[in-house]
Amino acid sequence: MSDTMKAAVFVKPGTIAVEEIPKARVQQDDDVVIRVVRACVCGSDLWFYRGLSGQEPNSQIGHEAIGVVEEVGSAVESVKTGDFVIVPFPFSCGKCPVCKAGFESVCPHGGYFSASQAEYLRVPEADGTLVKVPGSPEDYDDATLASLLTISDVMSTGYHAAASAEVKPGDTAVVMGDGAVGLCGVIAAKMRGATRIIAMSRHEDRAALAREFGATDIVPERDQAAIDKVLAMTDGYGADAVLECVGSKQSFDTAIALVRRGGVIGRVGLPHDVTISAEGTFYGNIGIKGGPAPVRHYDIDGGLLDAVLKHEINPGRVFTAEYDLDHIQDAYEAMDQRKVIKALIRF
Amino acid sequence: MSDTMKAAVFVKPGTIAVEEIPKARVQQDDDVVIRVVRACVCGSDLWFYRGLSGQEPNSQIGHEAIGVVEEVGSAVESVKTGDFVIVPFPFSCGKCPVCKAGFESVCPHGGYFSASQAEYLRVPEADGTLVKVPGSPEDYDDATLASLLTISDVMSTGYHAAASAEVKPGDTAVVMGDGAVGLCGVIAAKMRGATRIIAMSRHEDRAALAREFGATDIVPERDQAAIDKVLAMTDGYGADAVLECVGSKQSFDTAIALVRRGGVIGRVGLPHDVTISAEGTFYGNIGIKGGPAPVRHYDIDGGLLDAVLKHEINPGRVFTAEYDLDHIQDAYEAMDQRKVIKALIRF
Repeated sequence: MSDTMKAAVFVKPGTIAVEEIPKARVQQDDDVVIRVVRACVCGSDLWFYRGLSGQEPNSQIGHEAIGVVEEVGSAVESVKTGDFVIVPFPFSCGKCPVCKAGFESVCPHGGYFSASQAEYLRVPEADGTLVKVPGSPEDYDDATLASLLTISDVMSTGYHAAASAEVKPGDTAVVMGDGAVGLCGVIAAKMRGATRIIAMSRHEDRAALAREFGATDIVPERDQAAIDKVLAMTDGYGADAVLECVGSKQSFDTAIALVRRGGVIGRVGLPHDVTISAEGTFYGNIGIKGGPAPVRHYDIDGGLLDAVLKHEINPGRVFTAEYDLDHIQDAYEAMDQRKVIKALIRF
Repeated sequence: MSDTMKAAVFVKPGTIAVEEIPKARVQQDDDVVIRVVRACVCGSDLWFYRGLSGQEPNSQIGHEAIGVVEEVGSAVESVKTGDFVIVPFPFSCGKCPVCKAGFESVCPHGGYFSASQAEYLRVPEADGTLVKVPGSPEDYDDATLASLLTISDVMSTGYHAAASAEVKPGDTAVVMGDGAVGLCGVIAAKMRGATRIIAMSRHEDRAALAREFGATDIVPERDQAAIDKVLAMTDGYGADAVLECVGSKQSFDTAIALVRRGGVIGRVGLPHDVTISAEGTFYGNIGIKGGPAPVRHYDIDGGLLDAVLKHEINPGRVFTAEYDLDHIQDAYEAMDQRKVIKALIRF
């Protein structure tokens, strides 16, 4: 058994290397080490790839993975060697009031992974973090494995947008953002019973996938033209719920203008320089909820794992290209240039 | 029958006059005119009284009333002459998607009253606005009439804070603001099952009433000292729900610092120069909901009318002094100087 492993490393903006580094090992009693079976590149990884957010040079990267338990710390009770698991992008204690309220993604004792684009991954607080999948990876076809991978982040994040926006049966929901998260938001809005789902998309491939996922209408316009169109589609009242899956000021302002009075904006796009006027939203009784998605909560209590295993949803369709770890630079480039919606890394 | 009526009129900051003006009359088919039985002065009336917000000189004022139907427009179906009614501070069509979603207070076809401190009051869109009370005012004692008056605004507004904050059984809730709305927020948090209710109050009379209404703890500190105290009381995690019943930047910042990650701030304090950092709330998964309270929704569907009629709640206790209309200047002064919590106007 080798003492090293291959791992993707951020060198500088635009450059991702694959290096041999010391293999991930159990360091604490509650750690587990996973052999990664599938990982992927996230839209949020593009922030450091493009030099728009800070990332330590020569640091490991990646936060989405499924895999098999390779090594188990002495205090871990919920999984054993050989178990097939989903690794949510946040790790969490699973026991504090924040976790118990269903918000593991902001557990004050937890954090976020940044090392999953590698052959092995150390998982701290394994009992409070991992989501167990029945059987082993060999029991599932590629499409199902891809969908299981999405519930480590993007599908759960899309669901968090819909849940935060309080989408309920009969609603008209608008989804801002046609990246993998927005597309998964369409799936989530449909799961929660929205009867009209308006996807904001100006890219033909993404719009087609949005329709496949349940979007009833596509709006390619932006800004005031988009607002006018959605208001016209809703008799001037606006949408019952808005899923904000972008995070820019432009997207946020559009969301506020689009939502029906008394409606809620569920936001999961990482905000960049956004401030919200307390007055504007107050006099419309507009709610704003959301943040990093509590993946484990939605996978287990929210039924996402079940829905994938029963093939009721197929969020893995967001992966439009796959790469091996040695070619991860190509995966980043393809996503940066919007040639693929989301890039899967196969091990 | 006289053609004039007595009405309170805003003259200039600090001066409220009582004048004989033309009596309120039905002007539209869906109007009703009410003979006012009880009205009151609202904390929000102090904004114009203090010259801090605009109000037309020589304009009528007041937005809380209960009374008896005096005159009925030809299109009105839900009430008849002699009916006893609560007049919610907003009027609303009752038929549009915003009203049907339970947000009558922001109905795009509605508005807000500003004429209820008078002997008679014209109510537009009566079928979508009024809340009928069984019997007539003579059937109720003064305490019950006072409580019925509160569900035209402050009790419903306190309830909106609690509902927007998603207070649920077992929660720890913090109530910011010890005015009538905050005190009613304590009642609402208890109605919704909060087991620990922390009222922020530094006034002995208000703290005593908060305790009577169900507060389990009183925090007289402000700013960082208040934050430290509440965090210490909640093992460092913060409160599950915060009812923001003030509206200042100071109060809002404190609310954000106090709330548990994943918790919701229910805000009903009219915001003044408040902006919210989208980043700060995002990474705590902190929700912000609220606005003007949909009084009619809570009175009827939310059970506030029932709770008052069954004497399960006694929000009328917030009235600590009463005046007749001729002495309304005294009522404003007493509230301005915090000599009374809320001033009732008896007709």
